Order: sequence, then structure tokens, then C-alpha cells
Amino acid sequence: MHVIVTGGAGFLGARLIQRLLDEGAPIDGERITRVTSIDLAACPVADDRVESLTGDIADPALIAKALGDDTGAVCHLAAVVSAQAEADFELGMRVNLDATRTLLEACRAHPKRLRFLFASSLAVFGPGLSQPVAEAIGPQPRSSYGAQKAMGELLVNDYSRRGFVDGRVCRLPTIVVRPGKPNRAASSFASSIIREPLAGVEVICPVVGELPLWLSSPRTVVANLVHALLLDGAALGDWRTLNLPGITVTVTQMLDALERVAGPSARQLVRVEPDAAIDAIVASWPGGLEVERPLGLGFQADSDFDAIIHAYLDDERGDELDN
Amino acid sequence: MHVIVTGGAGFLGARLIQRLLDEGAPIDGERITRVTSIDLAACPVADDRVESLTGDIADPALIAKALGDDTGAVCHLAAVVSAQAEADFELGMRVNLDATRTLLEACRAHPKRLRFLFASSLAVFGPGLSQPVAEAIGPQPRSSYGAQKAMGELLVNDYSRRGFVDGRVCRLPTIVVRPGKPNRAASSFASSIIREPLAGVEVICPVVGELPLWLSSPRTVVANLVHALLLDGAALGDWRTLNLPGITVTVTQMLDALERVAGPSARQLVRVEPDAAIDAIVASWPGGLEVERPLGLGFQADSDFDAIIHAYLDDERGDELDN
Ligand SMILES: NC(=O)c1ccc[n+]([C@@H]2O[C@H](COP(=O)([O-])OP(=O)(O)OC[C@H]3O[C@@H](n4cnc5c(N)ncnc54)[C@H](O)[C@@H]3O)[C@@H](O)[C@H]2O)c1
Ligand SMILES: NC(=O)c1ccc[n+]([C@@H]2O[C@H](COP(=O)([O-])OP(=O)(O)OC[C@H]3O[C@@H](n4cnc5c(N)ncnc54)[C@H](O)[C@@H]3O)[C@@H](O)[C@H]2O)c1
Repeated sequence: MHVIVTGGAGFLGARLIQRLLDEGAPIDGERITRVTSIDLAACPVADDRVESLTGDIADPALIAKALGDDTGAVCHLAAVVSAQAEADFELGMRVNLDATRTLLEACRAHPKRLRFLFASSLAVFGPGLSQPVAEAIGPQPRSSYGAQKAMGELLVNDYSRRGFVDGRVCRLPTIVVRPGKPNRAASSFASSIIREPLAGVEVICPVVGELPLWLSSPRTVVANLVHALLLDGAALGDWRTLNLPGITVTVTQMLDALERVAGPSARQLVRVEPDAAIDAIVASWPGGLEVERPLGLGFQADSDFDAIIHAYLDDERGDELDN
Repeated sequence: MHVIVTGGAGFLGARLIQRLLDEGAPIDGERITRVTSIDLAACPVADDRVESLTGDIADPALIAKALGDDTGAVCHLAAVVSAQAEADFELGMRVNLDATRTLLEACRAHPKRLRFLFASSLAVFGPGLSQPVAEAIGPQPRSSYGAQKAMGELLVNDYSRRGFVDGRVCRLPTIVVRPGKPNRAASSFASSIIREPLAGVEVICPVVGELPLWLSSPRTVVANLVHALLLDGAALGDWRTLNLPGITVTVTQMLDALERVAGPSARQLVRVEPDAAIDAIVASWPGGLEVERPLGLGFQADSDFDAIIHAYLDDERGDELDN
């Protein structure tokens, strides 16, 4: 079976491709034999079974080129992330909303009912929710990114209900520790405040210590994305949106863990300097969600934040995808 | 001040135009001096202050033609209703989603920050909610109409948050008694089972008697739409979506009221013959919503269903808009 991963050059997309190929994960009994990445950049996964199409995901011709008779699933991860979608409204609408729709239309035209995995985000939620946030609670996003993801969720659900695709929508927690450089997600600091001190580099934390975050490690979220793709759609029921498990950790607790793992000198490299623009977005996201149903369906959460730091250090040593 | 009403030839649009002109409702201290209807059909309101532009609301040229320097508000009521949007997916997407976006873009380009009233629907909700449904509960629509309205809500909120428009989203209850002929809303029966027997005509009720509906009379909902338009945006807070008040009435209670008002012979004209396609849509909608906040903001509900029937009979006598 052929699988398409949009955003296959990205942080999670590349890891998802690697993992799908490592596991050979069978979908409906069929093993994954090839993967196509669609991304502005080339997919870094060095494997004969990976084809890398570079270009704009909003381009229907590119999508048509990727789809084959053997395609069984599309994992849609390409996105303009939160702070960038806030800064450039048109770009966010085009990539996060229009391209999602174009992709869904292409899947609908495919002779098979394709599995369609959509990476949404806890950024769909607004402030003031009693926590942990229950499953029925609705999106009231305070960012254009969140609004665009929430519209994408509705599209995937309606296309699924009509039988155009077999959709699965995963609302991702904030993923830490992201290796490499800061990106244009409003939550980028959540990785930086751990990653930079571990590398002996000073870093500014733009939010207050009391802020609770809903976190997952890259390993765990990629395992959850694979699980969402392999699950029988019927197990998800009629409504295809899932809040993926995470752990609730305040910024101060993250820094405590940093100190436990790397000592007080590492922690001293972090300087708190609140930034109103970042805070307006990140503080509107809930710090904890109710996830009994997803846990019951076999989705996983990290054990604690120390384990997340240790997993990062392990990955940094072993993982060729880090850049 | 000039106000645009899309769907101005429709059931509610025409009544809204009439009421805005009757009241001369001042917005920000400025009286409404002219209204433009944009609709496929001509606006039936006979008043010099009404200009009727006929054409497709998805056409940006038509919208540009309607907008003037004196425009202060847009009331967006044009829509492809539920059963039709279910039968014709493309049409629903084009009118309910794309045209809403086109209209919002046109408003954004206007030099003033325009008030933007969007008629959404309780059809955004899905089944299985504990009732009355709390404000924070999210859309999980089981119809393409509901999905398109839910996306429209997100657009209006994000355009408001960014300051592109001053939006107000009203989720309308099912409106009864609608005069005239059945339309292509899945809830059309809710009017027919009262209207036809009152006219001595037999009618089929496609849902079971126990089904609770969330209802409002045309008078009340039009008063609420005017109220939503005139309210200071700040009173609504950051999130601009409101569940409009209604009353919870089962189909059997509706027929009991019919019998009280028009006698047993009227009731005997109603034959229950459940229709799975109608039921799948209508039974997924909640029969009651929590509306303390909107009531606190001055929105109204009807007193009971008998009053709704009496109001219909009154209107039928006096109202030149009935067709
Ligand atoms: N990492 C997180 O904390 C997090 C949290 C919630 C949700 N998500 C979602 O998960 C998905 C993957 O996130 P990530 O962290 O890997 O992000 P990323 O920025 O590393 O990857 C996104 C990829 O999308 C590509 N892309 C952007 N615009 C494109 C376009 N027009 N055409 C083709 N490709 C385009 C980028 O080149 C990039 O490789 C995204 O949908 C994101 O919104 C991530
Ligand atoms: N009546 C109800 O029970 C109810 C309930 C919930 C929500 N609503 C919403 O309230 C609004 C008004 O409803 P209504 O009952 O007056 O419906 P209606 O069908 O009577 O009016 C809708 C109007 O939109 C116009 N229209 C449709 N497509 C168009 C297009 N492409 N270009 C221009 N005009 C177009 C139609 O010609 C019609 O006059 C709608 O948005 C509807 O979804 C109504």
C-alpha cells in the first residue's frame, strides 16, 4: 500500500514516515510499501521507498501526481504554524484551510475510500474552560491557526460522514522537545527553554512559570499518529475528532525537571521575559484535556516530563533526522 | 446608515428588512435609512428605502455593488438550507461556506469596521448531548449544512477577533410556524404539521411524537436578530457566537397545542410516518440549549407553543409578506 504524507519534510512528518516504514504498519492487512512526501522542502528520510515531491500542497496538480492506484491513506501534516498564520492571514487560510479542502477533494475523487489522517491541534480551544476539558467542549480559537484547524476538522468529519474519506482527526498537544532551531509556532518556546539550556545556551521564556501546558514527546505523538492511522474507523465512531493524550506540566515544573536532569546551571540559562503576543495565543490553550476515551482506544501518554527530556537526549544521540 | 441583508427575499430576511425599517433601529446612534437585499429572488418588501439586487451571493461583483460608503452593517442570511445542502454538497459548500468568506473579505476591504450578523443554526450540534446544552459545547454536526454553518461561525469569529468586522453569530432555533409552502429544510415538517391542519389540509409528520424540538416563532427570532445587530459588540465579549433562546417542545406537545387551538379535527389531519433521512438530521439536533447569558443580554424567548400558533394566525391575517 502507498501512503502520502504532506509536510513530510517537517518535524513530525519526517518522523511519521520513518516510523511507518520501520513498522511496515499494515493497514487493513496490507503492508505499507511506499510513501510519498509532499512538502515545500525535500523529505530528509533516506529510504528507497520514499518519494519526495516538492511544491505547494495547495496545488491540485501536485496532489494528483502523488495519488496512485495503490494509495490507501493520506496523512495531512503540512501546515503554516500558529505564530506565522497569525502574522500572515492569507497564507494561513490558503495552506491550512484551502489546501486541506483541495486534498480532501482529490481523495474524494479517488476510486477507493482513502484513510485521511489530519493533524489538528489543542490550539482550537479557547480560554476559560474548566479543566480537564471534556470531549464535547467546542473550539473557540483565539488564533487564526486554531480557527483554520477547527474548520479543517469540520471538513474531515463531514467528508467522512458522507463516505468521501475515512477520516481521523488528531488534536495534538504541544510537542516537546523539538530539536533544531525555534520555529514559528507560538509554542516554540516550550522546546527552546529545555533544548537551549541542555546545549549550554541562554534562552528567554516568554510566558510565566504558572502557565500549565499540555505536552507530548515527539515519540509518543508519532506513535499515536500511527495508531490513529491503523485503527479501524468504526472504533472511532461517528465523530472522528480525538484529543490526543498529553501530560499537564507548568513551565516551572518543566524547569524543575530540567534542573533534575541537567543541574542548576542549566536552569540558570533560562530568563523569564513575558511577551504579550505569545502569551495571548498560548495562554488561551487549555493545560489539560479529558482523554479517557482515546486512552481506552489504545492511544498513549508520556509518563512524566523528566522522561520527555531523557527521550530527547536519547533521540539526539541516535536520530539521523535531527537537524 | 445603509444595511445589507443577504437572503432578503427569504422567509426571515424579508421580515428582518421590514422590521429594521419599521423601527428605524439606530446602530451606534445612526438611523437606518436604506437597505439592500441580495438574493436570487427579488425582495418582497414594498418600501422605497429597499433596493433589491438579484443574483448569486457568491459573486464578489454583486457584493461590491451593494457596499457603499454609508454601509454600516451586513446581515448574512442567504443560505442553502439543510436537506438541500445534504442533497447537493457542492451547492452547499459554495453558498454556505465560500459565499460567507467572500462576503467577509468584501467587508474587510471596506474602510469602516462593519457589523456582520451571521444566521447560524442549532444544526451545528450533534447527537448525544446532555440537555440543556451548555454554551461551551461544540459543534459536531451530522449534516453538511451544520458543518458549513459551523465553519461560517469560525470565520466570523476570527474576522471579528482580527478586527476585520464586528461580528455577531446567532444560532437560530427551528423557526415555526413558517407560512407558505414546505421548503427544503429538514425541519420543514415542524411548520407543516401546524400550518396544513390549520388550513384543513392533511399532512405527514416524518418524526416520532417524543422528539423534542428547540423552537422560536418568526416574530421572536426577528426581534432577536435585530437585537443582535444593535447590541454593542463589547457586550458579547470575545467569542461572538450565541445560542438564541427557544422553547423545548415535543412533536406530541405541538400537536396537543394544535388541538387546543383548532380542535381535534385539525389534529386528525396529521399522520405520523417516520422518514429515516429526515430523522437522521433532525434527531441529531438538541431539543434544548442553555440560554441564561443571551437572556441576560436581552434576547427573548416565546412564552409557549400555543402562543406561537396564535402569533402565526395573527400574522397570517395581517402580514403582507406571507406568500
Ligand atoms: N509540533 C507541535 O507542537 C504541534 C502541535 C499541534 C499540532 N501540530 C500540527 O502537526 C503538524 C506537523 O507539525 P510539525 O511540528 O511537524 O510542523 P513543521 O513546521 O515542522 O512541519 C510542517 C511542514 O509543512 C510544510 N509546509 C508548509 N506549508 C506548505 C505548503 N504550502 N506546501 C507544502 N508543504 C508545506 C513545511 O515545509 C514543513 O515541512 C502540523 O499540521 C501542525 O499544525 C504540531
Ligand atoms: N427558518 C429556520 O428554521 C432557520 C433555522 C436555523 C437557521 N436558519 C437560517 O436563517 C437564515 C434564513 O433562513 P430562512 O428560513 O429565511 O431561509 P429561506 O430559504 O427562506 O431564505 C434563504 C434565502 O437565501 C437565498 N439564497 C439561497 N442561495 C442564494 C444564493 N446563492 N445567492 C443569493 N441568495 C441565495 C434564497 O433565495 C432565499 O431567499 C438562513 O441562513 C438559515 O440557514 C433558519
